Amino acid sequence: MLSRRGLQRIARGITAHQTPRRYLAAAALNGLKASSVEITPCTLPKTPPANADLVFGKTFTDHMLSIEWDDRNGWGTPHIKPYDKLSLDPSSVVFHYAITCFEGMKAYKDKDGKIRLFRPDMNMKRMNKSAARITLPTFDGDEFLALIKKFVKEDAKWIPNERGYSLYLRPTMIGTQESLGVGPSSRALLYCIACPVGPYYKSGFNAVKLLATTEFVRAWPKGTGEAKIGGNYAPGIKPQIMAAHEGYAQNLWLFGNHHELTEVGTMNCFVLWRNDKGETELVTPPLDGAILPGVTRDSILALAREWNEFKVSERKLTMPQIKEAVKEGRLLEMFGAGTACIVSPIKAVRYQGEDIAIPLDPKDSSAQAGPWASRFNKAIMDIQYGEVEHPWSVVVD
Amino acid sequence: MLSRRGLQRIARGITAHQTPRRYLAAAALNGLKASSVEITPCTLPKTPPANADLVFGKTFTDHMLSIEWDDRNGWGTPHIKPYDKLSLDPSSVVFHYAITCFEGMKAYKDKDGKIRLFRPDMNMKRMNKSAARITLPTFDGDEFLALIKKFVKEDAKWIPNERGYSLYLRPTMIGTQESLGVGPSSRALLYCIACPVGPYYKSGFNAVKLLATTEFVRAWPKGTGEAKIGGNYAPGIKPQIMAAHEGYAQNLWLFGNHHELTEVGTMNCFVLWRNDKGETELVTPPLDGAILPGVTRDSILALAREWNEFKVSERKLTMPQIKEAVKEGRLLEMFGAGTACIVSPIKAVRYQGEDIAIPLDPKDSSAQAGPWASRFNKAIMDIQYGEVEHPWSVVVD
Repeated sequence: MLSRRGLQRIARGITAHQTPRRYLAAAALNGLKASSVEITPCTLPKTPPANADLVFGKTFTDHMLSIEWDDRNGWGTPHIKPYDKLSLDPSSVVFHYAITCFEGMKAYKDKDGKIRLFRPDMNMKRMNKSAARITLPTFDGDEFLALIKKFVKEDAKWIPNERGYSLYLRPTMIGTQESLGVGPSSRALLYCIACPVGPYYKSGFNAVKLLATTEFVRAWPKGTGEAKIGGNYAPGIKPQIMAAHEGYAQNLWLFGNHHELTEVGTMNCFVLWRNDKGETELVTPPLDGAILPGVTRDSILALAREWNEFKVSERKLTMPQIKEAVKEGRLLEMFGAGTACIVSPIKAVRYQGEDIAIPLDPKDSSAQAGPWASRFNKAIMDIQYGEVEHPWSVVVD
Repeated sequence: MLSRRGLQRIARGITAHQTPRRYLAAAALNGLKASSVEITPCTLPKTPPANADLVFGKTFTDHMLSIEWDDRNGWGTPHIKPYDKLSLDPSSVVFHYAITCFEGMKAYKDKDGKIRLFRPDMNMKRMNKSAARITLPTFDGDEFLALIKKFVKEDAKWIPNERGYSLYLRPTMIGTQESLGVGPSSRALLYCIACPVGPYYKSGFNAVKLLATTEFVRAWPKGTGEAKIGGNYAPGIKPQIMAAHEGYAQNLWLFGNHHELTEVGTMNCFVLWRNDKGETELVTPPLDGAILPGVTRDSILALAREWNEFKVSERKLTMPQIKEAVKEGRLLEMFGAGTACIVSPIKAVRYQGEDIAIPLDPKDSSAQAGPWASRFNKAIMDIQYGEVEHPWSVVVD
């Protein structure tokens, strides 16, 4: 039960989490300030692995960015310091109630050696939304981004300078209150670690087979599917293993009695087809609360709308519709989209015991990607690596 | 994408997580063994707080129980050692993908000074199910329970010796793989911490008002509602704060278009009523995959069936049915049930803008609990504190 004092703390908390500015004015909590950063350089810098040896998420850079928050003082001094273990009480709420959210973004080195980020403002906005959903503190995204830039510059030698390679950045926020009560965490740690990564597919594209999953549901209306919180990920691992066991790379997550397509593994889902009106149409499920608002998803939609070569729709599609379109030769391409791979072409979907072949390139039977998947992939990479100037690519000075 | 080696590791993993015995035979991974425990007594023992000063989940005992696991060796040496921080890499998967599950149980001191646990075998079974759901390793529940008993004996001075007080035990398992790949954690830490706790309601019962929530959904069919995993808890905090803000102690979680009752905050939900056939009936939602299989829930059902004074049903009930029953004077009592409070009587439910008064005791207008809520609570406490001998109460020798 909540005491009156508890209710008051909660009342303060909800203000803090949801309208930080008002709260700052009212209670003089400290906001996040990039200018107060303290940098402690690593004394034993490591040698980054050769590009050919990179494995996703295994090797981390020399430093980390770290900022503590508590509900009495607000945000503390940001630190860029040597990469090190976290020392946390075993009662910390992150271990018990999964009070954690994160982002995935990348730093790229262009041909002139300049460091670039890709639409980082979207990551800042989404992380604040994720944090608010689980009552972690929000923060000024411009300030956190300024800190991430300083951190990336500190570890600039870790950014591979080859197209397709990049420094993966993992901003993370965890609840560190040392008490088992289920409620807003009175303390939090916002941090960012980084690891150099290679191209998702070592040798060009590698189209994958999916298992359309009817046994598990990833997200649901009025749940948390649109938030990038830890709790959305652990439950997906068992279904993924079961799919892998049968030879499928990922799950195609379905929802509802009509078996609507929602996401592909941890990626958004795109279908290019000729719809039943005979129009060529690129379709991705709408942001109805259960779909992660992917940065790559948004970028593909924006490029497709700019190119204006076919209809672009955010709407629901069902597996029976896909099956029928394949049968009638109306399905053109299908792919997943996310920060890790940009575009992941799909060559087959197993659905209700049947392998449905998804076309790749009608002009090249050995191709591992359709022409549009390839074009989206190239267009986004060209922007990420600064080969085409575009406001989405943010140079870190 | 998964390499062939990755698939092989996963194939090993799924065996390890789901059929540990076969796996142990095949790969000679070590099982969890209580007899190999190493005990390092705390050199600076603390003084437990006075019973009157106890706050749930704030003060921990002198020791903790801790066992590491990895996918090459299996379970390591169990340690009972001084309570201390965990030192974890910031890349540990628990921080990113919420690979965590836990249990809640209590140790009681009876009037003869004997230590007792309440149905601990159920916690062991449920924790193994939760672990398997998020591909954490399973373990021999008898062995872990033997370790918990040793741990409780080591910290026996921390168990308050007054009825209503107990030592709350928090077995927890987290994924500690130091790599950001989304997959089964190659390493895990199973631990248990303990804190002395007082009665949920300091002065007898304190009936609560609930906010029936239609804006958020706790769990979904084919989701993870029945698993005690961290990810089920973080999303419930914001709705709870919003309820508290309006003066309601907890959410009454509803599901579906018919507004079926599912759970109360983090408790199971019980309704005693005269149904539309005129029968007196105790109803709780069925274990359909979205309801946590509570130990207290199961105990109340078993006692009610043994007493045989009314019909006992595990079936769905909707808010419109509750509303109608209240209007017609057929609703007798409603309460939440869980380890923390045993029984939590409900005096009102706000639903679609209307406060529905729930009866407590018709013979005593000042009562904070109905006669059956009180009787279940007393019966369970009598067993927990060894005042009635019952196989549910397990003495720790």
